[in-house]
Amino acid sequence: MELCLKQIGSRSKYVKVATRHCQLPKGHSGSCDEFPYLKHLQTVASKVANKVKRDSTMTTGAAWKSTDAGPNRILRWVMLLNDEELMSYGLNMQGLKPQVVAKLREKAATYDDCVNVAKKLTWYVYQMPLAPRPPNDIKEYLESHFGEMQAGSTVCGVCRLPLSFELFEQAKRGSAPIETCHLDPRIHNAVNVRFAHRECNIAQGDKSLEEFYSWIKGILSRAGKL
Amino acid sequence: MELCLKQIGSRSKYVKVATRHCQLPKGHSGSCDEFPYLKHLQTVASKVANKVKRDSTMTTGAAWKSTDAGPNRILRWVMLLNDEELMSYGLNMQGLKPQVVAKLREKAATYDDCVNVAKKLTWYVYQMPLAPRPPNDIKEYLESHFGEMQAGSTVCGVCRLPLSFELFEQAKRGSAPIETCHLDPRIHNAVNVRFAHRECNIAQGDKSLEEFYSWIKGILSRAGKL
Repeated sequence: MELCLKQIGSRSKYVKVATRHCQLPKGHSGSCDEFPYLKHLQTVASKVANKVKRDSTMTTGAAWKSTDAGPNRILRWVMLLNDEELMSYGLNMQGLKPQVVAKLREKAATYDDCVNVAKKLTWYVYQMPLAPRPPNDIKEYLESHFGEMQAGSTVCGVCRLPLSFELFEQAKRGSAPIETCHLDPRIHNAVNVRFAHRECNIAQGDKSLEEFYSWIKGILSRAGKL
Repeated sequence: MELCLKQIGSRSKYVKVATRHCQLPKGHSGSCDEFPYLKHLQTVASKVANKVKRDSTMTTGAAWKSTDAGPNRILRWVMLLNDEELMSYGLNMQGLKPQVVAKLREKAATYDDCVNVAKKLTWYVYQMPLAPRPPNDIKEYLESHFGEMQAGSTVCGVCRLPLSFELFEQAKRGSAPIETCHLDPRIHNAVNVRFAHRECNIAQGDKSLEEFYSWIKGILSRAGKL
């Protein structure tokens, strides 16, 4: 599917870092839209649509609420800038703790990767058990990117158990039972991203999924449980 | 080994909740001591001795630093009191978030259990690879409680890999690479307590160790890694 990709205006001060683009099909009617495939979810489950946008485009910020620890969330592509460039935006990386800097830098991703992650996550959302059915145009749009969708087929990226859409509803401040996960936590792109149970994502930690599987296999072996 | 168990004076406002007792052998010379088996560690590795005392007797408080979230750490046996009794100490449990209350209550333990946990942890510390050697009186004391000690034999309670004493030195604020763990996280006593790598303890989460092993075995099975 060829996309419009016309530049979308923005009043964000970070507009110079990455220009945003219309993701509608080329030759579409009506106005341009950066997240057209989220329109339906925005109506029926706005929390989920917002989570997809946020997880795709922003760094996480769980532990960074205090002023000395740094920004809470920031656009992932802004984290591609070097310290000097960030300083010109008022972001003093050298004033942050080294662990915080490492965490922020690890979350860096290009604008295009973030956009594709948002699409991929939406593709997974609609395939969750108990998810709303996507309108046909959105279904076709997402399938043209990532292949055929099968209702109810989305499983946790870590433990492989079915991941119910209802888990989104149970989200509490700071402890949603469902999180975005990465096969390799250091790579934020469409191929590498999944949803996972919070406890699974926490257990995986900063290991790649393959490292995690090897690690727990070693544990079971040493504990005499294999 | 019969213990002195004479009551030890305390100026803590919680003294009425539990009286503290001398843990020296009965008929000892010199003054009474609540933690005599920590005296040597206090000299050669005070951070470790303090951690043993703290983890044994206090609730954890990682996420409770803000005033509205509740107390940072509190004596475990104080958490055995009911809400009304706690209120008389100025601790308003009903003003805390339900998850915080649950976490605090889950950490409750009797004074005697806490004392025995401290002894058991000390027994494990001295058996860590690269640990200092205990003076003979402390070695005998601990062995009379928990059996013969073998230098270098302490492993992580979760992953069963050797747990080096040097990990204590790598402790940073809020992220010590070594933590106290529990075979069943809801029971704080000498039988149930171990040391573990931080990442192992985090992965175990609020599951019992047996539940954790079953859980990761299921993961490996579904991921086709068994």
